[in-house]
Amino acid sequence: MSAEKRVRELGIRLPQATPPAAAFVPWVRAGNLLFLSGHIAKKDGRPWTGQLGAGLGTDDGKKAARGVAVELLATLRAATGNLDKILRVVKVMVLVNSASHFTEQHLVANGASELFEEVFAERGSHARSAFGVAQIPLGACVEIEMIAEVE
Amino acid sequence: MSAEKRVRELGIRLPQATPPAAAFVPWVRAGNLLFLSGHIAKKDGRPWTGQLGAGLGTDDGKKAARGVAVELLATLRAATGNLDKILRVVKVMVLVNSASHFTEQHLVANGASELFEEVFAERGSHARSAFGVAQIPLGACVEIEMIAEVE
Amino acid sequence: MSAEKRVRELGIRLPQATPPAAAFVPWVRAGNLLFLSGHIAKKDGRPWTGQLGAGLGTDDGKKAARGVAVELLATLRAATGNLDKILRVVKVMVLVNSASHFTEQHLVANGASELFEEVFAERGSHARSAFGVAQIPLGACVEIEMIAEVE
Repeated sequence: MSAEKRVRELGIRLPQATPPAAAFVPWVRAGNLLFLSGHIAKKDGRPWTGQLGAGLGTDDGKKAARGVAVELLATLRAATGNLDKILRVVKVMVLVNSASHFTEQHLVANGASELFEEVFAERGSHARSAFGVAQIPLGACVEIEMIAEVE
Repeated sequence: MSAEKRVRELGIRLPQATPPAAAFVPWVRAGNLLFLSGHIAKKDGRPWTGQLGAGLGTDDGKKAARGVAVELLATLRAATGNLDKILRVVKVMVLVNSASHFTEQHLVANGASELFEEVFAERGSHARSAFGVAQIPLGACVEIEMIAEVE
Repeated sequence: MSAEKRVRELGIRLPQATPPAAAFVPWVRAGNLLFLSGHIAKKDGRPWTGQLGAGLGTDDGKKAARGVAVELLATLRAATGNLDKILRVVKVMVLVNSASHFTEQHLVANGASELFEEVFAERGSHARSAFGVAQIPLGACVEIEMIAEVE
């Protein structure tokens, strides 16, 4: 099964991968591992701001996490030229900008996890940590980093 | 020295490893590295909820962290069939559900670190990060993820 | 270009690497990857305490992050004997002790990222995550962990 084909079937149009910022880069390859920088949630091209449990609900967060996963796919393609070169999504870390009483970070994170399984099938099943953070750069509601294995 | 033997000597009974959730799995192997998902603290089979510095003290947290470490051992055994196949505990990340004034995350984390050294001796000495987070899925007081090296 | 020479040119005197604590160690090598423990910010040899957005500003945090990066360089040298054995700074995770409204964690993190590029040039350009945490051990304002690739 081709991940590139799945992306097309799902009707997902991958955006331009985020260009490198001044001081760091979107990904680094070491051996067969690809380490992706934390990507933040965006809406209409700008940071999707807000805190879960204080204005944003679990469904918003899940949608934001799926959006970040699309950005991560764009970076994976930029890094490899072709999503079918991804052998495995190894590890995903999902940071949820959380009010102190919000405890559904795992449901928010599913927005990303489910997309990886839709696109990569069994190669998309990954280890994961999800937790609530005090804040995220630019006030974004979700940030996700990833480790993937490549050919 | 056998880690399996040490577990028995310490009188630790490893629980059933946590089954995979819908959208992610408890571990992924890439090359010789085993990446374990974040495991949350449990008490009597349910999430051990609460915040350090607001109801829970450092000793509670340390005990919770040791409990998570036992769960991680169960996952390591499920992943490898035998704890003696673990060459090294490489890296541990300890997240402590923290009130804003609580600053003893390192002492909480020792609950896990000490168990790894008891079980694996010098193969258990690991790199570590510990810090306070705003919240953890299901309100758990501690969450720990791990990277281990295998044969 | 030699990283050791760059450190001298920049007038940076690397401190003694932090000795191992009781329960964990400053770094672990697995294959060609070097995993460094979270290092906390220090001032005059003691934890540099405080929260960004509540007493400390972005410039303070950036300076603290640069200081942590110097500590990480000291650990890299202790691990390898010579900074020129570092093939690549692979991944940096920057934790910023943040009041709930502080959203400039990325600018704080630049204090570390810029030093790595000054010292290692293109070998210093890294993947990165930066985010705000509720608290850090001993009340430190910044904590940074790193993965590096070695020969």
